[in-house]
Amino acid sequence: MVTFPEAKILEIDLTSGTVNMKTLPGEIYRLYPGGSALGLYLMMQDYIPGTAALDPGNVLVFSVSPLTGLPISGISRMNVTARSPLTGTAGDSQSGGFIASYLKMNGWDAVVFKGKAEKPVYLTIDGDQAQLKDASHLWGKVTGEVEAAIQEELGDKNIEVAQIGPAGENLVKYACIINKCSRANGRNGMGAVMGSKNLKAMVVKKGKPMAAADGEAFMTLSRSVRKLLEENEAVAGLGLNGTDGDLEGFSDEGFLPTRNWKTGHFPEGANNITGATMYDTVLKERDTCYACAVRCKRVVEIPGRVDPIYGGPEYETCAALGSYCGVTELADVCEANMLCNMYGLDTISCGATISFAMECFEEGLLKPEQAEGLELKFGNGAAVNALVKKIALREGLGDLLAEGSARAAEKIGGGAEKFSMSVKKQELPAHMPQYKPALGLVYAVNPFGADHQSSEHDVFLVMPPDSRERERLSKLGIWKGYDNPYELDSEKVRFALDSQKYFSVLDSLSLCQFVWGPSWELYGPDELLELCRAGLGWETSLYELMMAGERRINMMRQFNAREGFTAAEDTLPARLFEPFADGPAKGIHVNRDAFEAAKSLYYEMAGWDPKTGNPTEATLKKLSLDWLL
Amino acid sequence: MVTFPEAKILEIDLTSGTVNMKTLPGEIYRLYPGGSALGLYLMMQDYIPGTAALDPGNVLVFSVSPLTGLPISGISRMNVTARSPLTGTAGDSQSGGFIASYLKMNGWDAVVFKGKAEKPVYLTIDGDQAQLKDASHLWGKVTGEVEAAIQEELGDKNIEVAQIGPAGENLVKYACIINKCSRANGRNGMGAVMGSKNLKAMVVKKGKPMAAADGEAFMTLSRSVRKLLEENEAVAGLGLNGTDGDLEGFSDEGFLPTRNWKTGHFPEGANNITGATMYDTVLKERDTCYACAVRCKRVVEIPGRVDPIYGGPEYETCAALGSYCGVTELADVCEANMLCNMYGLDTISCGATISFAMECFEEGLLKPEQAEGLELKFGNGAAVNALVKKIALREGLGDLLAEGSARAAEKIGGGAEKFSMSVKKQELPAHMPQYKPALGLVYAVNPFGADHQSSEHDVFLVMPPDSRERERLSKLGIWKGYDNPYELDSEKVRFALDSQKYFSVLDSLSLCQFVWGPSWELYGPDELLELCRAGLGWETSLYELMMAGERRINMMRQFNAREGFTAAEDTLPARLFEPFADGPAKGIHVNRDAFEAAKSLYYEMAGWDPKTGNPTEATLKKLSLDWLL
Repeated sequence: MVTFPEAKILEIDLTSGTVNMKTLPGEIYRLYPGGSALGLYLMMQDYIPGTAALDPGNVLVFSVSPLTGLPISGISRMNVTARSPLTGTAGDSQSGGFIASYLKMNGWDAVVFKGKAEKPVYLTIDGDQAQLKDASHLWGKVTGEVEAAIQEELGDKNIEVAQIGPAGENLVKYACIINKCSRANGRNGMGAVMGSKNLKAMVVKKGKPMAAADGEAFMTLSRSVRKLLEENEAVAGLGLNGTDGDLEGFSDEGFLPTRNWKTGHFPEGANNITGATMYDTVLKERDTCYACAVRCKRVVEIPGRVDPIYGGPEYETCAALGSYCGVTELADVCEANMLCNMYGLDTISCGATISFAMECFEEGLLKPEQAEGLELKFGNGAAVNALVKKIALREGLGDLLAEGSARAAEKIGGGAEKFSMSVKKQELPAHMPQYKPALGLVYAVNPFGADHQSSEHDVFLVMPPDSRERERLSKLGIWKGYDNPYELDSEKVRFALDSQKYFSVLDSLSLCQFVWGPSWELYGPDELLELCRAGLGWETSLYELMMAGERRINMMRQFNAREGFTAAEDTLPARLFEPFADGPAKGIHVNRDAFEAAKSLYYEMAGWDPKTGNPTEATLKKLSLDWLL
Repeated sequence: MVTFPEAKILEIDLTSGTVNMKTLPGEIYRLYPGGSALGLYLMMQDYIPGTAALDPGNVLVFSVSPLTGLPISGISRMNVTARSPLTGTAGDSQSGGFIASYLKMNGWDAVVFKGKAEKPVYLTIDGDQAQLKDASHLWGKVTGEVEAAIQEELGDKNIEVAQIGPAGENLVKYACIINKCSRANGRNGMGAVMGSKNLKAMVVKKGKPMAAADGEAFMTLSRSVRKLLEENEAVAGLGLNGTDGDLEGFSDEGFLPTRNWKTGHFPEGANNITGATMYDTVLKERDTCYACAVRCKRVVEIPGRVDPIYGGPEYETCAALGSYCGVTELADVCEANMLCNMYGLDTISCGATISFAMECFEEGLLKPEQAEGLELKFGNGAAVNALVKKIALREGLGDLLAEGSARAAEKIGGGAEKFSMSVKKQELPAHMPQYKPALGLVYAVNPFGADHQSSEHDVFLVMPPDSRERERLSKLGIWKGYDNPYELDSEKVRFALDSQKYFSVLDSLSLCQFVWGPSWELYGPDELLELCRAGLGWETSLYELMMAGERRINMMRQFNAREGFTAAEDTLPARLFEPFADGPAKGIHVNRDAFEAAKSLYYEMAGWDPKTGNPTEATLKKLSLDWLL
């Protein structure tokens, strides 16, 4: 059996300003391999139930996996865990970039932040040396300025900076953490948790590359990426047009969330803001994460308006700050994306909250005087971009919208709640449950609110059985195909649950789903096992890994249970149950009876109490989580 | 994705004497790969709930797997499925030999027998030709005579014969099916089902060897056996001393069931009847199953007394017809084994029922007149062997004991029930739950009564973490070690359940657990996946396979639920909860509270109703078993 090395953890008590280095026995990896699972484990060791997300008692963990830093595609994810100020649940957020690899190259598996600094600080990590430094002079500055200033004062460009912008400082509920000025731990408001601790940034020095346990086998696996890249159209497309490559196609089918999800059809703007147009117009270059051959990351430039240091918009961003708001101009979307990356805002929740405000405005629930002169009508890109900044700075209407659409709706009243397209107060990503009902189920039951990266999407089940995609899903026991994606039968429920477990594995090994996803792109379950073997000497199985994935989900769910969450919070916005009034998908909607039945079935399949939706004692014991009882 | 070939099924209606050949879409293999899973699937298509086991309406299935017939060790198992007359549950029984391979070589996946022949018949299979032939002249004959007679009348020695002896004809509740005169589908009384159908034998002609999908990779895998054989002491020991190699060691530790389980210590006889003594004395040769390099099978000869055509005793036989009955002489055991193979009796239930009778006799519950002159005291080997024959022929006391210890106890009365060492009326195999509490739990919850081949044994968890055995268990997510085997905590319950699923996979692929078991001997989970890939082109995963294993268990459990079984039948004999009065294990017993807690926990982990122990609707749906609802 593999002998895992000890896990090395940095513990930072921000209140006292002390830095502590501790180790955990390597066996910890077997149950909590890394990433989100390790982050949750560490967070829950210190977090006292009932602590508010923005209280100094909240525990914020950056964590990576034992695989992180090995030179292979799709291995660059940085996990951040804390109680979420947006959802109130266990918060979970992943980003790409280089900082995760750097952290592991310095020997660290995780950094745990507790307490609250008296004044703004940032942490530097250089090998065994970790230091808290004053950040008062950086407070209030946007990310590009801060990164440059830190490089300057450390006299070093071989560093990575994960930081908050003004939005995090101002405790915007969906403030994110930005690294490389362009990669975000976007969701769940982890940036606000940093802000609440007066922690401006974590800076990590580049370290020495990691060595694989079986160097030769590892190289073979790593090299196979290029071959696969050549063969795989989806990957090539992802590399070419980024994640935004499908936007126009979604609109054509009638499933691009548009004007706060009132429709799925956006003919007047979809072509303008789709990936191919971006490629043909504003794209400056394609960027990458550590060791990755995919190069899905966009860098756009609009001279005098959009600075390429802030990268470029993903699909989610083009939808949320584009079609959600009815914005038809790519330049507006690119600028909005830049502002979010400068100020540190999650583009999805930000765009969705603005589109919510636009609908409230159009419906007369937000008065012109509340909008402070902004003509908050769908399609007004300038108003969107003005609001982004106001939100980050909590100015005027921005202060209300900084709370997210759900909380804002409560304050606005008058039925505004029905315009908040959110689950557990987190706004929906741009994949429509009307089209992907299993994904919709996951939106509802996912422990940290609506998320599109926590499970596979239904459409893969519509592919032919001899496709690479379907073949890989069969390894998860998912073999039934569908003629159309709209069904939500019991096999689909298992698909939701099992693919969710697999994605949970990826998040627990800090891997990117575009490369290691079960059904598409580069590597599948077999290669994942080979990665563990060649990379770490860990001869595991898909069964053991899936159990680890299931363990992580249940840890979050049990966290939530202790905070009072129940089945009542596992809902979808009412709008999704209403038939589309127009577009190619006219008449299509989520069937409420099917959804409710699927939700109950999901609970039982997951081993959760049918009434509360919380893990049963037996389920926790099955997953060696007795310590959470 | 693999394109499975169609499954070919022979359907024999014994009532009308018709033979029907049908195919099923190859996708069937994905859910019910073969062996027991396929047998259950086919049986449950035709079986009408409530049908008695010995009614013509019972459905009897012989089945193999798509892997059967490939030239590699441990691939020779023949599954037989029907409702069991002994337990009343879904009946399940596996044997070794060559007949499974022959059946598949002729192109068949399964043979389904329905109805009842007017007169005794036997079936011959030669390629696409299947014929029912008169067996009136064979009725009443013992297996050796019948096999010779069939070879003679077919003029062919390249055949395999699976047959019942007089015990099956006489509907002894634990009559078995014998092939090669020495291999038994021993448990669950499948021989009586054949007898009830007037089906004396199934005869299969040798066919052409099967070809692997990837011949080269398959040969590499197959050749690795010899290397492993040289390296692995346990396998070498199994080859050398057979399954009986550990008998004396069990007694030395105090865990060899002796004198109807009153003690675990048998110093007066253990050395006589242990494998090494057999090797040194009566062993004539070591025999093998199809393509297997292990050669664990014994052939013993005692001139004038024990004929080598009937093979030799396994460990279970040496215990049940030896230590259970206090019999100290190996020759007596060898003769008893021969008689069981001649007359077609399960050696475990037969020995255990006789040891039950001996205790009843010693306790005065069976009177000397009922024993008809037999001095039924522990240790009387001659009396044991006389009784074996009487049971098969249902003569005198044998008629009562032919019902098994549980039913006999009901008739004897006076508290005799407490001497029946059985679960669901099936007698316990010779592994003590006092020593292996997780196995004891499986004895209780296993759908077809006490069984020692349905899960891994606790003792493997006492091995060092870097042992090959433990490394393999870690692939099932089982990583916790124990200093002693006696604990029964929640991790052990999961060990019981998960290893049970894995053994269920083996039974569904018709593989031998000595070769493909998860924790010992030759091949483990990784090689199993490679076997599926190289052998069939099936790129599966341990996750998908474990789901198939779980599916089989739930099919049986649901069969039982329909027949009225509940948690009340998931028990252990009371004696196991009483401390040993003597021997090296003095004082040790199964802790009743721990057992009851473990049973409840097992139900919940398995997704079964906590009160009834039956699969929930969600669990059946999770396993694509909606059709059983």
